[in-house]
Amino acid sequence: MSGNTFGKLFTVTTFGESHGIALGCIVDGCPPGLELSEADLQIDLDRRKPGTSKYATQRREDDEVQILSGVFEGKTTGTSIGLLIRNKDQKSKDYSEIKDKFRPAHADYTYHQKYGVRDYRGGGRSSARETAMRVAAGAIAKKYLKQRFGIEVRGYVSQIGDIKPTSFDWDAVPQNPFFCPDQSVVPQMEALIDQLRRDGSSIGAKVTVVATGMMPGLGEPIFDRLDAELAHALMSINAVKGVEIGAGFDVVTQRGEQHRDELTPDGFESNNAGGILGGISSGQDIIAHIALKPTSSLRIPGKSIDTDGNPVEVVTLGRHDPCVGVRATPIAEAMMALVLMDHALRHRGQNADVETHTPQLAGSARIKEQE
Amino acid sequence: MSGNTFGKLFTVTTFGESHGIALGCIVDGCPPGLELSEADLQIDLDRRKPGTSKYATQRREDDEVQILSGVFEGKTTGTSIGLLIRNKDQKSKDYSEIKDKFRPAHADYTYHQKYGVRDYRGGGRSSARETAMRVAAGAIAKKYLKQRFGIEVRGYVSQIGDIKPTSFDWDAVPQNPFFCPDQSVVPQMEALIDQLRRDGSSIGAKVTVVATGMMPGLGEPIFDRLDAELAHALMSINAVKGVEIGAGFDVVTQRGEQHRDELTPDGFESNNAGGILGGISSGQDIIAHIALKPTSSLRIPGKSIDTDGNPVEVVTLGRHDPCVGVRATPIAEAMMALVLMDHALRHRGQNADVETHTPQLAGSARIKEQE
Amino acid sequence: MSGNTFGKLFTVTTFGESHGIALGCIVDGCPPGLELSEADLQIDLDRRKPGTSKYATQRREDDEVQILSGVFEGKTTGTSIGLLIRNKDQKSKDYSEIKDKFRPAHADYTYHQKYGVRDYRGGGRSSARETAMRVAAGAIAKKYLKQRFGIEVRGYVSQIGDIKPTSFDWDAVPQNPFFCPDQSVVPQMEALIDQLRRDGSSIGAKVTVVATGMMPGLGEPIFDRLDAELAHALMSINAVKGVEIGAGFDVVTQRGEQHRDELTPDGFESNNAGGILGGISSGQDIIAHIALKPTSSLRIPGKSIDTDGNPVEVVTLGRHDPCVGVRATPIAEAMMALVLMDHALRHRGQNADVETHTPQLAGSARIKEQE
Amino acid sequence: MSGNTFGKLFTVTTFGESHGIALGCIVDGCPPGLELSEADLQIDLDRRKPGTSKYATQRREDDEVQILSGVFEGKTTGTSIGLLIRNKDQKSKDYSEIKDKFRPAHADYTYHQKYGVRDYRGGGRSSARETAMRVAAGAIAKKYLKQRFGIEVRGYVSQIGDIKPTSFDWDAVPQNPFFCPDQSVVPQMEALIDQLRRDGSSIGAKVTVVATGMMPGLGEPIFDRLDAELAHALMSINAVKGVEIGAGFDVVTQRGEQHRDELTPDGFESNNAGGILGGISSGQDIIAHIALKPTSSLRIPGKSIDTDGNPVEVVTLGRHDPCVGVRATPIAEAMMALVLMDHALRHRGQNADVETHTPQLAGSARIKEQE
Repeated sequence: MSGNTFGKLFTVTTFGESHGIALGCIVDGCPPGLELSEADLQIDLDRRKPGTSKYATQRREDDEVQILSGVFEGKTTGTSIGLLIRNKDQKSKDYSEIKDKFRPAHADYTYHQKYGVRDYRGGGRSSARETAMRVAAGAIAKKYLKQRFGIEVRGYVSQIGDIKPTSFDWDAVPQNPFFCPDQSVVPQMEALIDQLRRDGSSIGAKVTVVATGMMPGLGEPIFDRLDAELAHALMSINAVKGVEIGAGFDVVTQRGEQHRDELTPDGFESNNAGGILGGISSGQDIIAHIALKPTSSLRIPGKSIDTDGNPVEVVTLGRHDPCVGVRATPIAEAMMALVLMDHALRHRGQNADVETHTPQLAGSARIKEQE
Repeated sequence: MSGNTFGKLFTVTTFGESHGIALGCIVDGCPPGLELSEADLQIDLDRRKPGTSKYATQRREDDEVQILSGVFEGKTTGTSIGLLIRNKDQKSKDYSEIKDKFRPAHADYTYHQKYGVRDYRGGGRSSARETAMRVAAGAIAKKYLKQRFGIEVRGYVSQIGDIKPTSFDWDAVPQNPFFCPDQSVVPQMEALIDQLRRDGSSIGAKVTVVATGMMPGLGEPIFDRLDAELAHALMSINAVKGVEIGAGFDVVTQRGEQHRDELTPDGFESNNAGGILGGISSGQDIIAHIALKPTSSLRIPGKSIDTDGNPVEVVTLGRHDPCVGVRATPIAEAMMALVLMDHALRHRGQNADVETHTPQLAGSARIKEQE
Repeated sequence: MSGNTFGKLFTVTTFGESHGIALGCIVDGCPPGLELSEADLQIDLDRRKPGTSKYATQRREDDEVQILSGVFEGKTTGTSIGLLIRNKDQKSKDYSEIKDKFRPAHADYTYHQKYGVRDYRGGGRSSARETAMRVAAGAIAKKYLKQRFGIEVRGYVSQIGDIKPTSFDWDAVPQNPFFCPDQSVVPQMEALIDQLRRDGSSIGAKVTVVATGMMPGLGEPIFDRLDAELAHALMSINAVKGVEIGAGFDVVTQRGEQHRDELTPDGFESNNAGGILGGISSGQDIIAHIALKPTSSLRIPGKSIDTDGNPVEVVTLGRHDPCVGVRATPIAEAMMALVLMDHALRHRGQNADVETHTPQLAGSARIKEQE
Repeated sequence: MSGNTFGKLFTVTTFGESHGIALGCIVDGCPPGLELSEADLQIDLDRRKPGTSKYATQRREDDEVQILSGVFEGKTTGTSIGLLIRNKDQKSKDYSEIKDKFRPAHADYTYHQKYGVRDYRGGGRSSARETAMRVAAGAIAKKYLKQRFGIEVRGYVSQIGDIKPTSFDWDAVPQNPFFCPDQSVVPQMEALIDQLRRDGSSIGAKVTVVATGMMPGLGEPIFDRLDAELAHALMSINAVKGVEIGAGFDVVTQRGEQHRDELTPDGFESNNAGGILGGISSGQDIIAHIALKPTSSLRIPGKSIDTDGNPVEVVTLGRHDPCVGVRATPIAEAMMALVLMDHALRHRGQNADVETHTPQLAGSARIKEQE
């Protein structure tokens, strides 16, 4: 478990390099009896896939996933599920340019110093291509959460550079290549990306993920609080530099009477908490925001050093994605789903017999942005 | 390991309720031969302790820690270290007021729904009192990191409400009750806290933690990236609602050429990454920011329900802390130290034999705020 | 988790040296709502305690356990349970004799070579005194298993040297100091122990542990098979050198038609499997046997070396236990209970919704010895 | 991690059913820089492979393993290693006979009761075919242990039914299909297997695994003792019902002065401990014995029930292996290697800086059988 495994009861272990033979993962601990086929996984893989619009990188990754085990006669059996995606786009490219140089703000230097060796082809293990397996595994979690508990996990892009949605409509999200909940700002986003592409530059983004249909009780104090596990899961996504739950950094300037989400028999009156109190889900919507840095694969030359320590200049030619944050939406959904799934199983492991006469609060007050 | 254990090789497992008999923890995996005494732990415990100034809660917690095992003739032996703090301040208070009500924005409702039962005395396990053991355990990690690797972990308050430091001096931090690196804004902070105390209100805060003297190589892709583990650790602290690494949410509006920290033979030219690339430490300073919500223990009445689902009003009388974020500084240091310690051991477990002729970059460019 | 934690959902983490200040443990993941008091734990602690008969070591260990957390108003709350036993019998003895010598067949040499330092007082962490906390934690598991599932875990001594029970009666077990199910061989055992004590020698033993009232389904293939986890748990007890499930080493000479436990609508017709098939409990009694080595604390001089590598002679004077295997009975019960408890929670975490129309086989055929 | 992962720092996670599409595994935590190719793994896979002699099952499993990731330019990179074996021998057989019946002493009944569903084709996940991936993963551990530490892990068959080797020669082991260290008893073994095949019966076996070239210090008290982890690893192999370390069950009748392995400046004088004291390796040879049950795939009809609970008769026609224990030899080696590898990394993670002036004892006294 040197870092390639996530989860405790519902676990995901992955392997694979960007330009290696294949990517794969093992999903362990899935409850038996869930109907599952490749088609269930392919939907989200296709949402993550680059090359689907001109606003993302043009690299073709077919991302065709195969289920190798753990499913029999169309249903999960409770044994480990092996997933595989063959890499088709392994051009016999010349990597001599990149081989002995460290691209700034990439993992080249740190992998080299940690392991003494690195697969430099396309970033190797540090490439975002790795996230394909998270999305595939997350799709299993999503399906189970929906069918068994009615929990739905969805994400959207809440900011690209300075551009934010001005209205909110879940239905708009799948209708534009930016996962944007406000169709009216899409032209601005298009213009920005076009400009960045021309400049050989890139921009950061903010993505929001929401789980609706929650029940109270998920999350384990002290260290495995639901918010802590979500922070872990979301910060582990390539390029993420910040995670907020609910009101996030806005709490710094809030007063207590403003922040506290009051309870009434009709439900919570607000959701500054983002659906988590004391590390345990309250039944309100779970809301998380993540900040994604602008990619450093730029046509604008940057300073760096080579493996001998000499100064060099680095330029990234060829296809690249001016805003990697956009594609992170299905990945962030997958990571939230994995956390909720794991904790749903952990919760019933310990607390299956708990009964209380206290009603579960109805309704799920949301934060402003979504109203 | 239902959530009360943190770490993989250097692990901390804790127990204890706010008004129970004692708090305790077991630190496992500590390398042998480290000189260790209660005094080493007491320093940080005293920094966290409430009642040390009028700007924090007046509750007296002596927080006197005892080492019960794992240390022999003044040195760690490599076996598990048992730590204990007896609770002295267990007033035979009347809790009937709080027993059947859920305080808004506290963990009362969620603990009740998860476990069907809760120790309602002073918040029980969900009380921030629990963090005393994190600080004690973190002090062991801090000492080892310093002695063995020259790594130092320090924190400061970077914002209270709207008040931010305007200059930066590590030496100022211990000289005021706000862990503020700028003595000139301390009077404003005092005035704010005084006003909040009079209002029976509270305010949020932002705390920054920095590790200096780092070496490259700590952190394990994919899921146990150093930043992901830090996010986990820091988000697990009571009241934290956001975590940033390096430039954090500022990256949303940054362009790639602005964000990337260029490398030269003399070191990195900036530190937007916060010292972590691809989930692995680069040798630059590790920088993390956290947002802490305003406490909901207020004298201003709030709406809630009782265990039968009926509407009630909740008021918190007695001593309370208008800005819990302040005391979080040593806790955040402790959590960062625990992550670094664990990963220092994990790194040498796998990569003890790695050698590279590439020089480790000198210097450690910091983000603006600290310059 | 450097080895001092056991279990995955129901976990036990321990600390403490033989002659240190205290022993302690943290039990995490206990379901809430279980009635629990010190008295529940003390029963088994007293069964393990030395000094209760002249056939075990005369050292007085009061083993008075205190519950420090996780229990409120007489019931578990679902939070971590802290347990503590103060060491009362810490004579300011002179250990200079043992300090620089390695006792043969003790852990002195290996602790020294692993950690470079050791607490030599009474064996320190390697002393069997450590097992007190296992027994305390196991008592919690036992109580839950009994109340919630009707599972009962009991053990007995099935051999001391060449002496074996010739008949079997559970009721006899608590009626003699040897946990022997056959009162008629007790005089032989007494005579053997008396002779060994006079000789300053010791003898090995075999202990059998049985879980009755089992349900099918516990255990997780592939690596966390129930039998594999039991082997781990039981082999981790001091002095254990062998573990058998069901027919154990007798299977080497069995034929397939003899070994296979045939199924009929009335139940299994035999129990060579020891209640586990494919790593999963079948609902039959779980049966495990362990071999315990003769202690090496002898009055008969033995050869060894000192910390400088020079040859020395070692003799153990003072109180000692000629057959440590006897006291292992409640410890072995505790370890089996911990495994079953952990797997009961894990099983319902993953498989809470499983339903099958296949009847669970009644009856629980036992192996010969118990008939 | 529902049971399909083994290890803590050097971990192996597996998937795959007997007659599914493929078997696979992910090896995580391998140190970088190890030369590795498929050929390194194939050697042991071929030793495990059925169909290599008429004394094992005739089923053809090509077991051709492919490395999918984690190796670059012939060396491990420190990232996770994906391994895959396609199942070639998936006959479109008719499984209707077995579909609704539980074969006695197989995992059919318990998988069915645990998961409510099972892949009945050839045993599915419970088939010994799963062990191919253990052998592949173990080969990586073996190579590293040998190259880096000089540790060698080898096994042999120490008993089949009543037949035991009468002499010992490592060189004989690979020269007969029984992994027998005494060529002179091979004809007896052949005759026994031939007879069993004619009878449609089967027999148990005993396998011994030995690690030579050990260093002291591996193993972590209390629960992750090296012997406890070995017991876990070995008992997790299909058909294993007993595990012994060193003298094993013989200790029951040993006296202390006979059992204790005395130390002299020239080394230990015997090895009843099997190379482990207090759960930590002593530097002597590690010796473990396992008992493997006779397979229940017999031509001799046996009683059972069907999924409706009705009595049925079960017969296994077609190819079968009268002594599955024989093939377990490379599997047992693999499991021991995985444990040693994991603990070698864990040990240096915690204790890399330990130095002692005490000499490591030379020589490695073995138990009788091997002399």
